[in-house]
Amino acid sequence: MQPLRVTLGDRSYPIHIGAGLLDDMKMYAPYVASRSAAVITNPIVAPLYLERTLRSLEQAGARVVPVLIDDGEQAKNWVSLDLVIDAMLAARCGRDSVIVALGGGVVGDLAGFAAAVFQRGIGFIQVPTTLLAQVDSSVGGKTAINHARGKNMMGAFHQPLAVIADVATLDTLPDRELRAGFAEVIKHGFVLDLQFVGWLEANIDRLLSRDRAALSHAVRRSCELKAQVVVADERETGLRAILNFGHTFGHAIETGVGYGKWLHGEAVASGMVMAAELSVRVGTLRREDAARVKALIERAGLPVRGPALPLEKYLELMQVDKKAAGGKLRFILLEGLGRAALHGDLKLSLIRESIAAGL
Amino acid sequence: MQPLRVTLGDRSYPIHIGAGLLDDMKMYAPYVASRSAAVITNPIVAPLYLERTLRSLEQAGARVVPVLIDDGEQAKNWVSLDLVIDAMLAARCGRDSVIVALGGGVVGDLAGFAAAVFQRGIGFIQVPTTLLAQVDSSVGGKTAINHARGKNMMGAFHQPLAVIADVATLDTLPDRELRAGFAEVIKHGFVLDLQFVGWLEANIDRLLSRDRAALSHAVRRSCELKAQVVVADERETGLRAILNFGHTFGHAIETGVGYGKWLHGEAVASGMVMAAELSVRVGTLRREDAARVKALIERAGLPVRGPALPLEKYLELMQVDKKAAGGKLRFILLEGLGRAALHGDLKLSLIRESIAAGL
Repeated sequence: MQPLRVTLGDRSYPIHIGAGLLDDMKMYAPYVASRSAAVITNPIVAPLYLERTLRSLEQAGARVVPVLIDDGEQAKNWVSLDLVIDAMLAARCGRDSVIVALGGGVVGDLAGFAAAVFQRGIGFIQVPTTLLAQVDSSVGGKTAINHARGKNMMGAFHQPLAVIADVATLDTLPDRELRAGFAEVIKHGFVLDLQFVGWLEANIDRLLSRDRAALSHAVRRSCELKAQVVVADERETGLRAILNFGHTFGHAIETGVGYGKWLHGEAVASGMVMAAELSVRVGTLRREDAARVKALIERAGLPVRGPALPLEKYLELMQVDKKAAGGKLRFILLEGLGRAALHGDLKLSLIRESIAAGL
Repeated sequence: MQPLRVTLGDRSYPIHIGAGLLDDMKMYAPYVASRSAAVITNPIVAPLYLERTLRSLEQAGARVVPVLIDDGEQAKNWVSLDLVIDAMLAARCGRDSVIVALGGGVVGDLAGFAAAVFQRGIGFIQVPTTLLAQVDSSVGGKTAINHARGKNMMGAFHQPLAVIADVATLDTLPDRELRAGFAEVIKHGFVLDLQFVGWLEANIDRLLSRDRAALSHAVRRSCELKAQVVVADERETGLRAILNFGHTFGHAIETGVGYGKWLHGEAVASGMVMAAELSVRVGTLRREDAARVKALIERAGLPVRGPALPLEKYLELMQVDKKAAGGKLRFILLEGLGRAALHGDLKLSLIRESIAAGL
């Protein structure tokens, strides 16, 4: 099938989606021939897919340098980043080397950031092996690591050379992670595409039973929607912020419970319920549409309530959220299903009520 | 005086050069009004210039957040970077905050890199207070921190919003640092401008006695030359590499003796003598021109010999230099005075001989 294309001038790149792409050396050859390719992955993904990926890269003419970082959100930190940089320097990687991110969102974000800063920036290829990474984090060039004071506090916009999404790798994904991935799929529908929301409502059971045709469609449509937004606003100066629907609450949840206890998608799921509630209270969304938001999230097996942290803790954590420009709380609100916008200067009382309603 | 201008589309910026600019709030106002401004400096510069800078920023409407990092090249590391990020988050800085780099090359490189990665990138202003920073490192957007395996191994191209070079701050610069700054001034002549080499030969004594008119001319001409190259090749994919004349040897020297023992300019000075020697041996430079290189460096009070490290140590350190693309050693050679180019695939024996001759 024809790849999707993210059109960003000299930073344009293809998104390949299909089953078995991991073994197709032609996917990698344009980027790695006669170069060093540092493959960043973790101990969960490595036994499943590392050998096949290294073989494809070698067939494509690369000198491969595998680097393992720890698994999980708590590994998305400076220690792992330094480990990657150190391993690459020890292996004599240079400015013409390429990084290959083999794994989920954590691997992709960290490996992408490593590529953004290694010797002031080298190319990288996303090979996402989780649903979350395939539908969201591998597309758009957002890379980052976490800081004790907040998620994604250090990072860069650094577009990949290519995204290679092999949907066959979803076969080995644990159910919980599959469901977490659907949070972002569903989000793309809520903020951008009412018709896709309808399709998801009709097909959520097929998706949960891993029907490959349904999965391929969901991945492709998600990537298309995300790519449209990225092309319109690469560096998130405006429109792109709508992709953060549910994320202001979600990031507070992830930080509040400690990184890794809740999966990103789980935190975003209950964050979207809060954000939909806030939209109703501000007056931009009908109560029955908020009910559809909650129902679809619930049917996907995702949490519709946030963890029982004190209300003040939520508010404190949201203050450091990146979208708190100039100290004012700003939120992405739904303006009907399939449409979203950034709202600033919201009444604190409405935010409190929406969190309380979502606990 | 009219500012110079670095013309890079939406990343264009002015370079203001003059005496007393530190106290001119108009320099800062376009960038910091109603924003948080994190001023990064060190304990040497702070007692001299921090209060005045904070006052100007406050007059310009900024909320100021001073952050001190340790002095010296050894502070250009992850620990300092994390300290900056942490202090900014603690002070509730966000994506609309601005970083002000007040100090020399270390402060500028580190603060610039912090700006490149803080919440995926914010603006920053260079306020260089050393000659090295005024003539070289504050212009062009190269930012970085060091790694145990090599200098500037993590970094980004991130252009400042403005450069404010107050030549009056050079009054307090120690002689040794003033001389080290001349290494880069002289370098700009060697690689780009034969006429400027002649001017430097005629005026080096005035410069060393800190004649302010001579200093202003040297800073301005250096910035002009550097800006020309940056505009032609922002991300160092070609031409810009010529600014690294002397730096492959120089970085090896800095790493070999331990960061901070030799000043950057001192290492580059003896590196340029080696690179000129290599140019003669490769056949691109006349022996008498190499003698002019060495003589001017010597008259500037800079070392013309590298430290007595084993030859093999030099070679080992140069292998990890960023310009060692694909493992091949590449060098900037002079092709006459005022002209330089990148040469690859040089004979190892010539490189050995040139180092040996420069010890």
